[in-house]
Amino acid sequence: MARTIRVDLRERSYDVSVGPGMLGALGATVARLRNARRAVVISAEGVPAEYHRQALESLRGAKLTADLIVFASRPTSEAGKTLATVADVLDSLFAVRPAIDRDCVIVALGGGVPGDVAGFVAAIALRGLRFVQCPTTLLADVDASVGGKTGVNHPAGKNLIGAFHQPKAVLIDIDTLKTLPVEELRNGLAECVKHGVIRDDKLLDFIEANAEAILACDSETMTELVARNVAIKAAVVTADERESSVRAHLNFGHTVGHAIETFLGYDSIGHGRAVALGMVAACRLAVQRGLIDASAGERLNRLLERLGLPTRWKALDADAIWQIMQHDKKARGGRVRMILPTGPGKVDIFADVTQDELCLAAGALGG
Amino acid sequence: MARTIRVDLRERSYDVSVGPGMLGALGATVARLRNARRAVVISAEGVPAEYHRQALESLRGAKLTADLIVFASRPTSEAGKTLATVADVLDSLFAVRPAIDRDCVIVALGGGVPGDVAGFVAAIALRGLRFVQCPTTLLADVDASVGGKTGVNHPAGKNLIGAFHQPKAVLIDIDTLKTLPVEELRNGLAECVKHGVIRDDKLLDFIEANAEAILACDSETMTELVARNVAIKAAVVTADERESSVRAHLNFGHTVGHAIETFLGYDSIGHGRAVALGMVAACRLAVQRGLIDASAGERLNRLLERLGLPTRWKALDADAIWQIMQHDKKARGGRVRMILPTGPGKVDIFADVTQDELCLAAGALGG
Repeated sequence: MARTIRVDLRERSYDVSVGPGMLGALGATVARLRNARRAVVISAEGVPAEYHRQALESLRGAKLTADLIVFASRPTSEAGKTLATVADVLDSLFAVRPAIDRDCVIVALGGGVPGDVAGFVAAIALRGLRFVQCPTTLLADVDASVGGKTGVNHPAGKNLIGAFHQPKAVLIDIDTLKTLPVEELRNGLAECVKHGVIRDDKLLDFIEANAEAILACDSETMTELVARNVAIKAAVVTADERESSVRAHLNFGHTVGHAIETFLGYDSIGHGRAVALGMVAACRLAVQRGLIDASAGERLNRLLERLGLPTRWKALDADAIWQIMQHDKKARGGRVRMILPTGPGKVDIFADVTQDELCLAAGALGG
Repeated sequence: MARTIRVDLRERSYDVSVGPGMLGALGATVARLRNARRAVVISAEGVPAEYHRQALESLRGAKLTADLIVFASRPTSEAGKTLATVADVLDSLFAVRPAIDRDCVIVALGGGVPGDVAGFVAAIALRGLRFVQCPTTLLADVDASVGGKTGVNHPAGKNLIGAFHQPKAVLIDIDTLKTLPVEELRNGLAECVKHGVIRDDKLLDFIEANAEAILACDSETMTELVARNVAIKAAVVTADERESSVRAHLNFGHTVGHAIETFLGYDSIGHGRAVALGMVAACRLAVQRGLIDASAGERLNRLLERLGLPTRWKALDADAIWQIMQHDKKARGGRVRMILPTGPGKVDIFADVTQDELCLAAGALGG
């Protein structure tokens, strides 16, 4: 019941394989790469040690030399995603004996943070090593596993330091979702709903019809859910190689969502919850403008609530959120652009959102 | 009398412009890039402040916002080329106000070290900014300005951390060579001689015929010398996109040269001198094998001596140099490969060099 999605980026194309037990295919996947005789697994402390063991066993079973580097980081926060962590991991990588050469393959094992850190280390060690990505959270499965974005945060902002570095393969082991805290699951589900709104109304039907099985992490349902989301993300990323504005559609719910995170503080609200609120505000704004029917907004709210994601939040100040959005954009020399739904599975970019309409839409979140 | 060499790397192609006063063209060059409204010049302390001033004046004259970041580093050593320096420069870059966005252009101004550091910062800031390279030493002009190699050292080895990141343009101001210490000039001349041996016998004729004018940094002669060398490096780098062993030819003189630097210590011998000795040893080995006539080796020695580069060095231990070469290669899991001349302007890769013949060839350096 495994599924494979091809990410078509010409000479940088690769397959994303989704299914239960997929970590067991790691060794064979690495061994197929040209001149691959060894791999170094890079992971973070919060990732279950069982997955470290499975990864090493699979690599060694394929007659590869395998080493493991586990860096200190809280997987539910971005606090450890820094250049200092990258420097520590590089120290460990260059201390491995015998010393690695350019044929060494990096395995990025874990959620978004280990994936970003390990991917960036692969991008800059020996001016670029091949890497295989093994995400272990739903958010990393449906979001970070496609697109080649790697990197770390800087005190001046998130993801300011990094590189585009495409993996040679992505292995998504659905079994890893069974150990995932429910809050982490919700972070991923918010992105799944987002993909449905921006590209695929039928995905929303699927989530509605299978909400119980999804929340119970049923293997077959999750394989289907992840595969469909990876396919959407892959389509957006490959289209963006030709038309560079398309990727901005992935920011649906994130413009307001990021402002909410800044307003409340990153430790006070999970990313998935903030994105859910951002999507609700964007849909409400689209309804105000007559871009979509009120029923579409109500449908989104009902679906988010079934998944345990919020559609309201106490103590949100719409004016403050507007100011944060302005500040974020002005600091980068641009204008506020919002992604708004324009029909089932369709969105567009709007640069003319006014303070009044944003405050009306966002104000309803708190009321 | 300016010269332009096209580096043909498909969508990453760019021009290298060589001539006196070329720094004055910086503003117009940056302004031609799409959406370029601002530039940040990154340079090192050892680079003459006059060049900083010229660069900023040219940028501002082209109606661009221009900032300057000067990091602490000794330009004649590799000591400051570290990830810590990169982190410091990134701190300064993200502290510039208003904050930079992806349209910002980095200008790398200085010799090899500032070029490598600024190029790497450009590669990883905001996942990749465009950059224009303005080398100010002969070595950077003829070597680092082409090929897109950026990066820094790690205690475990040189250039272990970095990225391939091609500049949008390279401006080589020949006037900057007039302030260059003669030892720095020699570092570049060793690479020029190398290019002649591996690709272009007529370049050796040119250097022989113009040695006085070269050592006096005559503008017209240096423009011609640099342009010819850039063209050779560009031809090797572009050929290497198709055939990846060709770039190894640039290591002529460097296999033994690096071992000599390790044996004597990097502060005891300049890179150019070590490479000169490495080339002498490689030519001698080629003569021993009958690959070239003894006269070709004698010609190389005479030319190096005219340029003030050594062909002998006291206290060199050929056995120790062999051991270092073995260790360097074994640590990286490979075999010792030497680039040996096989005819005028021709070299090949040899993986079968024995201890006896290397010690015979290198032993003559010290005797």
